[in-house]
Amino acid sequence: MKFGVLGTGAVGKALAGKLVLLGHDVVMGTRGTDNESLQTWITRSGYPIRLGSFADAAVHGELLISCTVGASSVEAIRSCAKSDLAGKILIDVSNPLDLSKGMQAVTLTICNNDSLGETIQREFPELRVVKALNTCNSEVMGSPDRVPGDHDLFIAGNDSGAKEQVCDLLRSFGWRSFLDLGDITAARGTEALMLIWLRLLGKFGNTNFNYKIVRAEQESKS
Amino acid sequence: MKFGVLGTGAVGKALAGKLVLLGHDVVMGTRGTDNESLQTWITRSGYPIRLGSFADAAVHGELLISCTVGASSVEAIRSCAKSDLAGKILIDVSNPLDLSKGMQAVTLTICNNDSLGETIQREFPELRVVKALNTCNSEVMGSPDRVPGDHDLFIAGNDSGAKEQVCDLLRSFGWRSFLDLGDITAARGTEALMLIWLRLLGKFGNTNFNYKIVRAEQESKS
Repeated sequence: MKFGVLGTGAVGKALAGKLVLLGHDVVMGTRGTDNESLQTWITRSGYPIRLGSFADAAVHGELLISCTVGASSVEAIRSCAKSDLAGKILIDVSNPLDLSKGMQAVTLTICNNDSLGETIQREFPELRVVKALNTCNSEVMGSPDRVPGDHDLFIAGNDSGAKEQVCDLLRSFGWRSFLDLGDITAARGTEALMLIWLRLLGKFGNTNFNYKIVRAEQESKS
Repeated sequence: MKFGVLGTGAVGKALAGKLVLLGHDVVMGTRGTDNESLQTWITRSGYPIRLGSFADAAVHGELLISCTVGASSVEAIRSCAKSDLAGKILIDVSNPLDLSKGMQAVTLTICNNDSLGETIQREFPELRVVKALNTCNSEVMGSPDRVPGDHDLFIAGNDSGAKEQVCDLLRSFGWRSFLDLGDITAARGTEALMLIWLRLLGKFGNTNFNYKIVRAEQESKS
């Protein structure tokens, strides 16, 4: 399948690499294709990934993944032609982090009564936005078995069919347990997990952890 | 041990009841002691709980528990004499919920760059505030075995000794796994869990669930 990955940071590299290993055809979109370290990473990895603009990635991708820094997500998508977005699924993996005060005092630029996921869906109603993967580290996203045993991935979005397709894709990554929290406004809850995730990172000193919701199965109505 | 429980809602009743069953001596503090349904609850339960003002509860308690609605917590504590607070541990169980738009659109009145826990610690530096229990339902707080298997309780506070005492108390409730997230500013993370907890409640249709952080044990530095 053809994927457009918007963003070339740790998350973009991890997801693009995983997709290629699974046999998919990936264009990574970036602000400038003259990024030397990125070209070096692609060459060294041997991955048949092509670099392009965000707009190039949107042209190529049947499914799009947004993993720019949260503050740039809307701008990156806006640089794509609307006709290249229309009807496509976009997985929003980013969190709206304000890193200006350092890693010890990270806050969210959108929080509580709004979320980045909602913002993207509102700005681009032609997209079918699915919020997913934003609650764990980039390496865990593509290799969930870095965290042992059972653990959950939270999903939010307005389009049930899109969420099903995303879960199918993520099953191929190794994810086994999904908690669909409802419409895209549930991204308020999953993005706000960053506020505790960063504390857990500080405590554990590594990123190989994830959430599991423990409950009495027989009492569930889901 | 003598406890002062500030607040007489579902959380106050659950915790006061648990404490009495464990042999503790409890005064529940309320705005008005003429609350007929509360008196009926105490009479019917047979619990030797005394009702008083918030100030009476603070006089009585060697350890205090704040479980008023979040919007009233500071005012309730302010009505107590500073000399009855000085040096005491206060477990802050409340979340700063804004319920004015209904249960489907709950937001937090304090969030992201501050928390109720920090607000209480800042307003009352004479207290040793420990944020705990605010991440689960009132029935689970006192009976964690309502959720099967292993699951975690998050702890935050500036005073290590106070956190240890609170964990000892909560072990007697049946809690087995504590994640100390650091100083009281970590309450930003645990209070923000409400934004996902309410979605999970809507999905499951019951409150018998809790969080577990799954990780590779051998890589932990804690």
